[in-house]
Amino acid sequence: MKDVAARAGVGLKTVSRVVNSEPGVTPDTERRVQEAITALGFRRNDSARILRKGRTASVGLVLEDLADPFYGPLSRAVEEVARDHGALLINGSSAEDPAREQELVLALCARRVDGLVVIPAGDDHRYLEPEISAGVATVFVDRPAGRINCDAVLSDSFGGARDAVAHLIAHGHRRIGFIGDQPRIHTAIERLRGYRAAMSVAGLPVNEAWMSLGATDPSRVLAAAEAMLSGPEPVTALFAGNNRVTVTAVRVLAARPGRAALVGFDDFELADLLSPGVTVVAQDAAQLGRTAANMLFRRLEGADEEPRQIVLPTRLIARGSGEIPPAHRVAS
Amino acid sequence: MKDVAARAGVGLKTVSRVVNSEPGVTPDTERRVQEAITALGFRRNDSARILRKGRTASVGLVLEDLADPFYGPLSRAVEEVARDHGALLINGSSAEDPAREQELVLALCARRVDGLVVIPAGDDHRYLEPEISAGVATVFVDRPAGRINCDAVLSDSFGGARDAVAHLIAHGHRRIGFIGDQPRIHTAIERLRGYRAAMSVAGLPVNEAWMSLGATDPSRVLAAAEAMLSGPEPVTALFAGNNRVTVTAVRVLAARPGRAALVGFDDFELADLLSPGVTVVAQDAAQLGRTAANMLFRRLEGADEEPRQIVLPTRLIARGSGEIPPAHRVAS
Repeated sequence: MKDVAARAGVGLKTVSRVVNSEPGVTPDTERRVQEAITALGFRRNDSARILRKGRTASVGLVLEDLADPFYGPLSRAVEEVARDHGALLINGSSAEDPAREQELVLALCARRVDGLVVIPAGDDHRYLEPEISAGVATVFVDRPAGRINCDAVLSDSFGGARDAVAHLIAHGHRRIGFIGDQPRIHTAIERLRGYRAAMSVAGLPVNEAWMSLGATDPSRVLAAAEAMLSGPEPVTALFAGNNRVTVTAVRVLAARPGRAALVGFDDFELADLLSPGVTVVAQDAAQLGRTAANMLFRRLEGADEEPRQIVLPTRLIARGSGEIPPAHRVAS
Repeated sequence: MKDVAARAGVGLKTVSRVVNSEPGVTPDTERRVQEAITALGFRRNDSARILRKGRTASVGLVLEDLADPFYGPLSRAVEEVARDHGALLINGSSAEDPAREQELVLALCARRVDGLVVIPAGDDHRYLEPEISAGVATVFVDRPAGRINCDAVLSDSFGGARDAVAHLIAHGHRRIGFIGDQPRIHTAIERLRGYRAAMSVAGLPVNEAWMSLGATDPSRVLAAAEAMLSGPEPVTALFAGNNRVTVTAVRVLAARPGRAALVGFDDFELADLLSPGVTVVAQDAAQLGRTAANMLFRRLEGADEEPRQIVLPTRLIARGSGEIPPAHRVAS
């Protein structure tokens, strides 16, 4: 800054006016300042931002799993909104570990991000209170914050799951299995609740053996699916609680005779080109990210309202796998 | 540190010895220091790292596209190696923009990462020289650095592409199209070179209309594929230059009568469950990330050797789409 001022032969205040596009500078002076900036390689954008708002023009995104394709469009949408606001996006992944999430969030705060978009792994975010009080804008996405009152953007997991199971019931299924993510995860619990609600509304009993929550790695999902599809009271349809579960369920069903029906929560690439196409309850991952990032920047621009929770609708897309009738109907 | 020393009734040096697991501390003293650390919530790991090496125990990963699933396993592998070394991983994405890459790399350096793993978007990395001289360990992955001499871990794009095209030739194809990424991208050029080499070795002419490099968005790839598959000299097989191109090519071919053959560079989820299964040249994305991260931490631990380039082999996986014979053979 000082070097720019010296080179242009103006005061610091004038340099500040130019980089902030403020009035009161003659065109000739502005040109001299711009030339000095260019000559000195002064990084105009960053400095302008910091001068303007006392901020670092960077925001952090805390992901849950770098390898889950669901988070690709979500991350990219957050990045695009950040870029539209001239801010840099820095990501990190908790790898589904609450301790890692906390370490990462605090490390990003220590590196002075202006705000955070968090896909939480943990369910207690009181550790964030001092940071939020200190002015770090924070929005949760995909899952709400635990034990603090904070902005959040979620998909309608309960309603989407209920719709998925009601769809299977409408196609004649009475014994339906649910394989979901770990029970400490908000979306897994909400989707289980939606499953139970749809069964209950239809007056169908639910067998404990038809519900399995746990890790979404292929071996666990495969074992759960095989168990539900075998035995004396096999299910005739599966509802898969997220895209990681669905892709393994597709493999299990493709390898078995007498195809069971399948509806998955989350859409995924090429789902329509499989045989049969996979019926899904689609979330709009990009819209989740965009909405959360827009909330964040509204906060950064000074919006001072009560924390809000926005719930986005899901959409059932019928493609074949969810419309297969039960192979062996029990007398009813 | 001072508080810990005061509470434990020892000197600063003793606290430093305990957190660094150095000898010369009695078990009783060590216990008192540990208790003081616990009582004060002193973040042992981070502080120990900074004390030990004058480092921040964080490394940066600069990605090219957050929404390309190829980078999921690569990122996760880098993260796992970082965690094994007690370091935090911070990501950012260039979104294929060289200016954005530079901005992000310098922003990560300004936030004092110890090292960087970079999937470059640009082809001139001289801007990194001052950072590297200042001690920021840097390893490029997937694509080499441009105009600087730097560690890099790559897949054998040339050899993999040559194998893919030779495979199609071995199944009777003579008119083969190549759809690749933008020509400023190293891997796109290497794969084009592999395509040309295989055609040349087989004594087959190459028509300019059979090669198309450009953005990998669906509309561009769709237009390129349709053009190659139509007209007076249609190709009977396509070689897709990366997974983004392949998934669009699969859609184009599924919608057309008289199936053309297809081999794709990069494996992708569910490729084996499509009909036909998609024959690919697989890279080991996780191994790329792991190898790069291991190189980085060797550098951080003081390895002072000349920069190296490691090239990992690819593997052709035949699944059906690459073994379809030409529908209409020209007399030869």
